[in-house]
Amino acid sequence: MKRDIAEQKFLDEYDPSDYPPIAVAVDAVVFGISRSAPDNYRKLGKQSLNILLIRRSEYPFKNKLSLPGGFVLPDETIDETAKRVLKAKTGLNEIYCEQLYTFGNINRDPRMRVISCAYIALVDAEKTRINNAEWAPMDMIKNEELAFDHSAIIMEALKRLRGKINYTDIVFHMMPEKFTISQLQEIYQTILEKELLPAAFRRTIAHKITQTDEFTHNAGHRPSRLYRWNGADGEITVENR
Amino acid sequence: MKRDIAEQKFLDEYDPSDYPPIAVAVDAVVFGISRSAPDNYRKLGKQSLNILLIRRSEYPFKNKLSLPGGFVLPDETIDETAKRVLKAKTGLNEIYCEQLYTFGNINRDPRMRVISCAYIALVDAEKTRINNAEWAPMDMIKNEELAFDHSAIIMEALKRLRGKINYTDIVFHMMPEKFTISQLQEIYQTILEKELLPAAFRRTIAHKITQTDEFTHNAGHRPSRLYRWNGADGEITVENR
Repeated sequence: MKRDIAEQKFLDEYDPSDYPPIAVAVDAVVFGISRSAPDNYRKLGKQSLNILLIRRSEYPFKNKLSLPGGFVLPDETIDETAKRVLKAKTGLNEIYCEQLYTFGNINRDPRMRVISCAYIALVDAEKTRINNAEWAPMDMIKNEELAFDHSAIIMEALKRLRGKINYTDIVFHMMPEKFTISQLQEIYQTILEKELLPAAFRRTIAHKITQTDEFTHNAGHRPSRLYRWNGADGEITVENR
Repeated sequence: MKRDIAEQKFLDEYDPSDYPPIAVAVDAVVFGISRSAPDNYRKLGKQSLNILLIRRSEYPFKNKLSLPGGFVLPDETIDETAKRVLKAKTGLNEIYCEQLYTFGNINRDPRMRVISCAYIALVDAEKTRINNAEWAPMDMIKNEELAFDHSAIIMEALKRLRGKINYTDIVFHMMPEKFTISQLQEIYQTILEKELLPAAFRRTIAHKITQTDEFTHNAGHRPSRLYRWNGADGEITVENR
């Protein structure tokens, strides 16, 4: 873009420090399903929907659990902040991640005015190695006092996840590469917190998955057919915008 | 929240001006449908999907068309900024408005680092009085060089609108209180830029509307039944969060 002299003068005289300071942070809600050990040979272990939390070692909210987050630096886009923060604080890299909502209540941070741009990320929790963070089950989080407004951010993220599993393929980012239909159904049920009818569920997801030639071979179970998500295309990273 | 002495000391010594300046703005994409005058007695006038734009009187991007927008002030939430800016720059008040997406490219504003939290709003363009702003048809906008990254914001807003008219009642904020089914179908077609089959369309929207005892009485037309949206509940304002 070419600028005329008057515009250049305007820009030269513009002093950003004339304005009240404000900061922009990113906070990430990373969802994963954990499959706890089967409690007997008939039933699969109960699954739970988990979120990755970090215990804060610094003020404010020292010792409280919080979402992984950090400030947007001058030379990075918000998406880049999300990637950097996730990698630095949890070890996660190259995962599915999208912007959720921007939270701007005035006193959400006691340090200064901080506006938080929240992201959601989905991983296969069984496969993913994490550092310095812990998986917290949704049931526990609902009763825990988290740092900042992170409880409200998580509730918004859960709402988005529940909406999106019905009209997108987002859920497959939480699945192993191969899975049974009942395993997939259980994940839907865990997220939606309701029972689904197997026949109706199969119809809903039929076009999203392809059967493989493989079967489960767990002792005590009849073998079940393994399926694969049609849309899997290797690495999925933060959307660019 | 009670704070211990060490935390209070930390907060007292925290100086927001130690960090690089950043600003947060709100930009609003206001959609409205205009029904131009019928070109003959058989056809309804062609509708177009419009967006409310303002011609900038100041640098940067002086004289370019832009979305109505403004900076988030220290004592207001982002939603409050959206409301204030819409009222101040277009005269609109008490309209349906929701957060769209936050745009954070590094050089999107030549003045300083400005992160823009974009909103979408929907109004009945025929009924709404606006000040200092003009309705620009989508077709024109696609070929116009707008200020900042406002073209990209508008494209994202259009994507959201197209997605949401299928699984929400959002479209009714653009409708008059009473309307015919073919008027509603035309609005869907205008937004989606495709023809819909009348029978299938009726099935899709049947549960969202209720028939009234009234009919259109345009000269040259057979009278058509007027309907009303089930969800209308008077004033709808910016979501609180």
